[in-house]
Amino acid sequence: MELKAIYQSVEQDLAEVESQIRTVTEVDFPGLAEMLKHILLGGKAIRPALTFLSARFYKYNLDLLLPMATSVELLHTSTLVHDDAIDKSAVRRGRPTVNSLWGEDRAILLGDYLFAKSGEFAALTGNLRVVRLFARTLQIISSGEMQQTFDAFRLEQSREQYFERIARKTASLFSMSTESGAILSQAPEESIQALKGYGTNLGIAFQVVDDLLDFIGTEGELGKPVGSDLAQGTLTLPAMLLLERYPEDNPVRELFNNPDMPEAARQEKIKRAIEMVGSSSVGPECYEVASDYCAKARRELGSLPASPARKTLLEIADFVVSRKN
Amino acid sequence: MELKAIYQSVEQDLAEVESQIRTVTEVDFPGLAEMLKHILLGGKAIRPALTFLSARFYKYNLDLLLPMATSVELLHTSTLVHDDAIDKSAVRRGRPTVNSLWGEDRAILLGDYLFAKSGEFAALTGNLRVVRLFARTLQIISSGEMQQTFDAFRLEQSREQYFERIARKTASLFSMSTESGAILSQAPEESIQALKGYGTNLGIAFQVVDDLLDFIGTEGELGKPVGSDLAQGTLTLPAMLLLERYPEDNPVRELFNNPDMPEAARQEKIKRAIEMVGSSSVGPECYEVASDYCAKARRELGSLPASPARKTLLEIADFVVSRKN
Repeated sequence: MELKAIYQSVEQDLAEVESQIRTVTEVDFPGLAEMLKHILLGGKAIRPALTFLSARFYKYNLDLLLPMATSVELLHTSTLVHDDAIDKSAVRRGRPTVNSLWGEDRAILLGDYLFAKSGEFAALTGNLRVVRLFARTLQIISSGEMQQTFDAFRLEQSREQYFERIARKTASLFSMSTESGAILSQAPEESIQALKGYGTNLGIAFQVVDDLLDFIGTEGELGKPVGSDLAQGTLTLPAMLLLERYPEDNPVRELFNNPDMPEAARQEKIKRAIEMVGSSSVGPECYEVASDYCAKARRELGSLPASPARKTLLEIADFVVSRKN
Repeated sequence: MELKAIYQSVEQDLAEVESQIRTVTEVDFPGLAEMLKHILLGGKAIRPALTFLSARFYKYNLDLLLPMATSVELLHTSTLVHDDAIDKSAVRRGRPTVNSLWGEDRAILLGDYLFAKSGEFAALTGNLRVVRLFARTLQIISSGEMQQTFDAFRLEQSREQYFERIARKTASLFSMSTESGAILSQAPEESIQALKGYGTNLGIAFQVVDDLLDFIGTEGELGKPVGSDLAQGTLTLPAMLLLERYPEDNPVRELFNNPDMPEAARQEKIKRAIEMVGSSSVGPECYEVASDYCAKARRELGSLPASPARKTLLEIADFVVSRKN
């Protein structure tokens, strides 16, 4: 199933988010406006869709949901801008990154600006609980990314550490998207927690698939080079499974033990790791893990009233495991 | 007059801010905790003092003011962390910067974390107007810093551009400090605007003096190398006045026209510019400009009830012009 078909019920509201985001680019400072236009186009809008859908069970008030969904998408974008600056990535979504076009310094400041804009939209809801959720989420994301820098090129990492890290850096924004929609629709506390749990598990599944696609996807599908995680020294689930499967003569081990090896040798190791993932059971195993988290996400929805929105959220859980980019 | 003596009336409340900030460093992540402890010690605490003092005219409620004053100080710190990463500065307040100790990448993430923490404290006031003010201020600061990157090594800049830039990058946080104190004390709108205006003008005066101290201060007093602005290609008021005074054979012009000159030649130009500022009327003229802004700041207080707090705010305006670091 295509994302567009899944989103049909919130298509109009997502178009409104796009309009809001367009207003963000209209600033009286040409240099900044150009950067904002570059970065704020495109994107799958899965997070704002989750906010809208999570609000469909109780009082659906677009005046509150629109700023929140916009906030969620802007926060996502701002973290991408800083991530790319930190990773010195050249390409994202098939286009040059902000840091590659305007330098790392402006990427830092653009990210800061977008954080602030995102916070302003969250405040427009007039709801202090979601404002606090917003502030907490950004702390969780940035400390998760920080953890990743401390764990870089470290081979001794447990699966618990991996799941903890992706829960922080990715799933927290998914759960903020669903939880905020639930809060703003005046859902009872039990439903808020169910939708939050759905978001968390969906986010973990999403990241596990993301980490696998970094090995088995193509640059054309991903819009960025494959093998980026290994190049950054980030140990993800597929690499962990590869290390377990092949304790001797393992390209991941060689790469992590020699982070300063020459570029050609490095590329060779990454290529070999990608081939090994492709020809082993690592891919199916990762999908199984992701499917387990999606099943958990689906179970969280069990307590919510059967409705078209619930059906759509279930479909999103399926999509997350089947997606190619 | 010493800052400590000026602050006497808010000394206890500032000690509470310190306690709050100490709790921020208590995180269950040793790497992050170490960085937080490093960066959150020290500082003049002038901004939280302004928040407390601006709240002294109406309903002084420490339960609201404490989180706000803490937010103001944390926001200030987070902008310093990102500024130092952008400028690749090695020393701040006489100590190594975060980027020099832990690298630029972690400095970006630490700044993000502190922004978020700061936003969380702002939200603890339960007042959406100050939350919006917080979000707007961060947009203004980051776009002001962005403007500075676009203006780097450009000789053709008007004074208006200079004042606009320092209003954004420095004065906005001063005015947020005073305005938020006024809002949280339930001051009438006229008093809020007066205290906001005081903060803006005080902030501009503060930055003009800061920019002059970069030429006439000593590394010991400043806690960072002199001439940093010229080294970054930032055209400040003293440099502008120097360019007006000496249109020919001017080290600032030579430096800005050849940003890639060898390091030794660069240091020589900076040294000459510092000497020229020291032996000319540029210093007194900058002080005159700063004094004018402080006079404006003082006039803004005219509409407020005569009180010890007003007297202290007037003394702070005097201090800002006489300070050595």
